[in-house]
Amino acid sequence: MSQEKPQGVGRRRLLFGGAAAGLGAVAAAGAQWAGNSSSSEPDLVRTGLDEGGANGAQTVPFYGRHQAGIATEPQTHASFVALDLGTDVSRDRIRSWLRLLSDDAAALTQGQPALADTEAELAVRPARLSVTFGFGPGLVKAVAPHLAPPWLAPLPGFGIDALQERWNGGDLLLQICADDPLTVAHAQRMLLKDSRAFAAVRWIQSGFRRAYGSEQTGTTMRNLFGQVDGSANPVPGTAEFDRVVWGDAEIPAWLDGGTSMVIRRIAMNLDTWDELDRHGREESVGRTLANGAPLTGSAEHDAPDFEAVTALGFPVIPDYSHMRRARPDNPRQRILRRSYNYDDAPEPGGPVSNAGQVFVSFQADVSAQFLPIQERLDKLDLLNEWTTPIGSAVFAVPPGAREGGFVGEALFG
Amino acid sequence: MSQEKPQGVGRRRLLFGGAAAGLGAVAAAGAQWAGNSSSSEPDLVRTGLDEGGANGAQTVPFYGRHQAGIATEPQTHASFVALDLGTDVSRDRIRSWLRLLSDDAAALTQGQPALADTEAELAVRPARLSVTFGFGPGLVKAVAPHLAPPWLAPLPGFGIDALQERWNGGDLLLQICADDPLTVAHAQRMLLKDSRAFAAVRWIQSGFRRAYGSEQTGTTMRNLFGQVDGSANPVPGTAEFDRVVWGDAEIPAWLDGGTSMVIRRIAMNLDTWDELDRHGREESVGRTLANGAPLTGSAEHDAPDFEAVTALGFPVIPDYSHMRRARPDNPRQRILRRSYNYDDAPEPGGPVSNAGQVFVSFQADVSAQFLPIQERLDKLDLLNEWTTPIGSAVFAVPPGAREGGFVGEALFG
Repeated sequence: MSQEKPQGVGRRRLLFGGAAAGLGAVAAAGAQWAGNSSSSEPDLVRTGLDEGGANGAQTVPFYGRHQAGIATEPQTHASFVALDLGTDVSRDRIRSWLRLLSDDAAALTQGQPALADTEAELAVRPARLSVTFGFGPGLVKAVAPHLAPPWLAPLPGFGIDALQERWNGGDLLLQICADDPLTVAHAQRMLLKDSRAFAAVRWIQSGFRRAYGSEQTGTTMRNLFGQVDGSANPVPGTAEFDRVVWGDAEIPAWLDGGTSMVIRRIAMNLDTWDELDRHGREESVGRTLANGAPLTGSAEHDAPDFEAVTALGFPVIPDYSHMRRARPDNPRQRILRRSYNYDDAPEPGGPVSNAGQVFVSFQADVSAQFLPIQERLDKLDLLNEWTTPIGSAVFAVPPGAREGGFVGEALFG
Repeated sequence: MSQEKPQGVGRRRLLFGGAAAGLGAVAAAGAQWAGNSSSSEPDLVRTGLDEGGANGAQTVPFYGRHQAGIATEPQTHASFVALDLGTDVSRDRIRSWLRLLSDDAAALTQGQPALADTEAELAVRPARLSVTFGFGPGLVKAVAPHLAPPWLAPLPGFGIDALQERWNGGDLLLQICADDPLTVAHAQRMLLKDSRAFAAVRWIQSGFRRAYGSEQTGTTMRNLFGQVDGSANPVPGTAEFDRVVWGDAEIPAWLDGGTSMVIRRIAMNLDTWDELDRHGREESVGRTLANGAPLTGSAEHDAPDFEAVTALGFPVIPDYSHMRRARPDNPRQRILRRSYNYDDAPEPGGPVSNAGQVFVSFQADVSAQFLPIQERLDKLDLLNEWTTPIGSAVFAVPPGAREGGFVGEALFG
């Protein structure tokens, strides 16, 4: 894999200001952010609050070596849209579709209207909008079947799965993220309009995290069980992050600078979770509820001590805890989690709670990184008591597009 | 109606800072806000951004003469939860339920855990959380049938309606609003847990507006048609607002300081709307898309000139436009709109788009204020071409609770 420095959002640079031309907002500045650090926001954010641009004017670059929406500090809202190719959509028409989507995603992420934007006024608050493309097995097969990576296939079935076909698979995945829900709705609408002649919606999943500005940048999210979730993530800007996400092994050239994405819809049973006391909850995951510290530590990012035992000789971090089961001995079995909570309206006649997590992970190689972790969790993980995977999909994530190009261009040779 | 000054949130005071004890955030200060004005936020908001509390620490008072969530500057997210009383739930048990809900709403809105909060860590970012209680016909009938106001009943059917029973009615309505979606999810969960022994969920509708900080405070929302929506709202702090919302006519004493709430789920057909050009869109509502100005003016809040005609002698603001039809000659026919957009996942086998508006209006008297407007719109309103009411409910909104009391206490005599 190339050693050149990542570009665009891969540099972890955000451009602030610079909403659509004609709106009078022209200020733009670059600012570093450092993954999990708690460094304060740059001055321009607050200037924006005073001058009407507010954080709605912040943009994330679309073009670059890597796609945005992966190393990007997670936005508040996400919509995951899975599309199925229409029958008889030729390779050339798929190319046209991807170009159309890329052009519109590039414009919308910079606060500009899509090409045929009928609600242009909804485009002016990008609010860190990113659009990330994932290619399912069907799309790669239709374009260049010999270039499919070996891991691009549905995951093997797990004992804990109760998959529903309505949440599985998809030929193209659009991950649309922004800090403003109206921005996400508008971008989704525009990209679906682009897709009408080429594909049909298979499923759409929406999710959320804490609102932008509601807590410090870089705070690890909490899920609807109240747990700090994602502490062990690699930190953007480190060699480890690059290895976990972009990889260092031989891959098809069209995926150089790309990665893979696993999306699992995981229903969480809040009612049975309620029956568990605080101690039981902390043991189930191996971390404290208060700040997510390992049960052998005091701060979230303390290294867990899996050897520590209680006065009675039991492990402090139980054998069945999620953290112990998820954490590999093999340092190559790492993934980047970028999940979102969902709390949908109950379906008519169904249970009152329809909540859970849209689990999202990025890793260079599904088979070498994701699968071993999932297999361990399938065998034993106390959290399985309260969680049920009901949807599953795997996508190849191409590198970012060069300016004037489109996402996935290299797949067309 | 009493002439005393409104208290609590009725004073239009927001308390900033002051998250849960033990978090180290203790700063608190009052600040005026002025409805639709564009005055900048007080300093403490930005201090919060630096010091980790961010806007997640902002609180809206729960206790006061009026309930919060009405004159409150609309938060980004809302969940509307309609509950049906269980069979054989006695008047005394309804009282217990309302006290439990009030106590927990009071705590949660101030960033403190609910009484039996099993995810206390999710309570620490109130993000302007408000919980507003509405009593449906069934609840008032169960407690004090002789005290029901005459307008507390389902709306008459309109020609444009295509109501689905799953979105209609309800005995108790909880409007849960906050700038952070995780805060809304947690508060909803806690209040539903409080309700398990008393009632069942009838429906839940979620909605959104622009994110907090995405644009200036006081900006009128845009709906998913891209239109500025709600320009004609009365402004909190004015005599007109008080008359429209809290009323000045004879009402049952238990509603003194209260109002009424109409919730209509209005599906918006984005696909057919797409076929309309910009000119047609502006004529349908009578306002420009760019800034919501009446077609006879240049700024959003310019008074429309309904007499103005084009060179050809046609009205500049067409007879069939939404604005002309909605706006009464009778100044008493006014309402406060506080609606939210929805853009839900498509239902399996249904159309791709499942979007629209959770229309919400507050008015002292449904019959005298809301109905005449709706009747005019039902007869003629070009927007009816693209919108379909699919749900409808009416609630009596009691005044705010006094500290130590509960919402609706006066209904129990």
